[in-house]
Amino acid sequence: MVEKRTSGRPPDVAAGQAVKAAALQLIREKGYAKMSIAAIATKAGVARQTLYNKWTSKAELVLDAVFEETGRYASEPSAEAGEHCAEQLEAFLVDVFSHLTLDGDPLRALIAAAQEDEGFRTVFRERFVLPREKIVTALLQRAQQRGELGAERDAEMLSAFIHGAFWYRLLNGQPVTPALAKSITEEVFAR
Amino acid sequence: MVEKRTSGRPPDVAAGQAVKAAALQLIREKGYAKMSIAAIATKAGVARQTLYNKWTSKAELVLDAVFEETGRYASEPSAEAGEHCAEQLEAFLVDVFSHLTLDGDPLRALIAAAQEDEGFRTVFRERFVLPREKIVTALLQRAQQRGELGAERDAEMLSAFIHGAFWYRLLNGQPVTPALAKSITEEVFAR
Repeated sequence: MVEKRTSGRPPDVAAGQAVKAAALQLIREKGYAKMSIAAIATKAGVARQTLYNKWTSKAELVLDAVFEETGRYASEPSAEAGEHCAEQLEAFLVDVFSHLTLDGDPLRALIAAAQEDEGFRTVFRERFVLPREKIVTALLQRAQQRGELGAERDAEMLSAFIHGAFWYRLLNGQPVTPALAKSITEEVFAR
Repeated sequence: MVEKRTSGRPPDVAAGQAVKAAALQLIREKGYAKMSIAAIATKAGVARQTLYNKWTSKAELVLDAVFEETGRYASEPSAEAGEHCAEQLEAFLVDVFSHLTLDGDPLRALIAAAQEDEGFRTVFRERFVLPREKIVTALLQRAQQRGELGAERDAEMLSAFIHGAFWYRLLNGQPVTPALAKSITEEVFAR
């Protein structure tokens, strides 16, 4: 039961956590396409209406469960870090790719869902894509301020190159590995 | 009737052309998700079994109809062309993007379909993705041989940057414009 695992937290927060945990477990067991909102509700021990009150679609629930509120996948690199921005970028990508190796299937399913639903595409871009794109753009701009990356470089385009490269690999069924993180970083910084 | 429009060609070629024309028209009118194989057969005036004999899925039929055999979307740049490889890359991308502006929705639908079906993902990668990736890799290697791009650059990674950047824009509902072709080319070549 939800109450036992989450005593002390407000019931709606507890239910939300249980729902996200159930969604995450089901998506790993069954995959996105075969996972239903009804099954999530049953596994979480909450009323189905509770889910519909909070999420308008399976895609938005998965976006929350897998990527938004768990704190996993791409935390912002520390601006205080003394290491070279190339090292920060490589470490950031290694971190992203290790999550993608675990949760790449749900991310691919969300990108597919975004192609079929314009409303979700907008939500997905605003809540998931743009914040991550901006983390990398800011890192590259910091590298330019430090003189570690040429001032004439186009940080926004490079951020699209970087995200585009691993989306492209992921969507084509290719592995996203630490070696890929290193190759991307070297090509961006090596001049 | 197919026979009237295609007299002089063997019937199976004529039927194949009619099917692809019908699929292309239907995908533009209705979108990928709402287009059925039955509707394509009816519109093309061919027996449904004729379609199933040649294509194992809607996704493969659309791959043929929209991208493979029509000769549109990304013809290989001429190796004899005297112009700088940067100009060739920009012209190539402008050409690709103009087709994507017309047929971006079916391409997005195919990429989504590839996420949901591993067999189709393999076919899509081998027949569509890799040939186009190699065109750009070869162009960049030619640029390196000519001294227009540094020999230390990673042509394969740059090709993934380039394709990744416009896939990323397309899949996030952003326009792929001649200005994007210019920005990509400048970032790849400007050093």
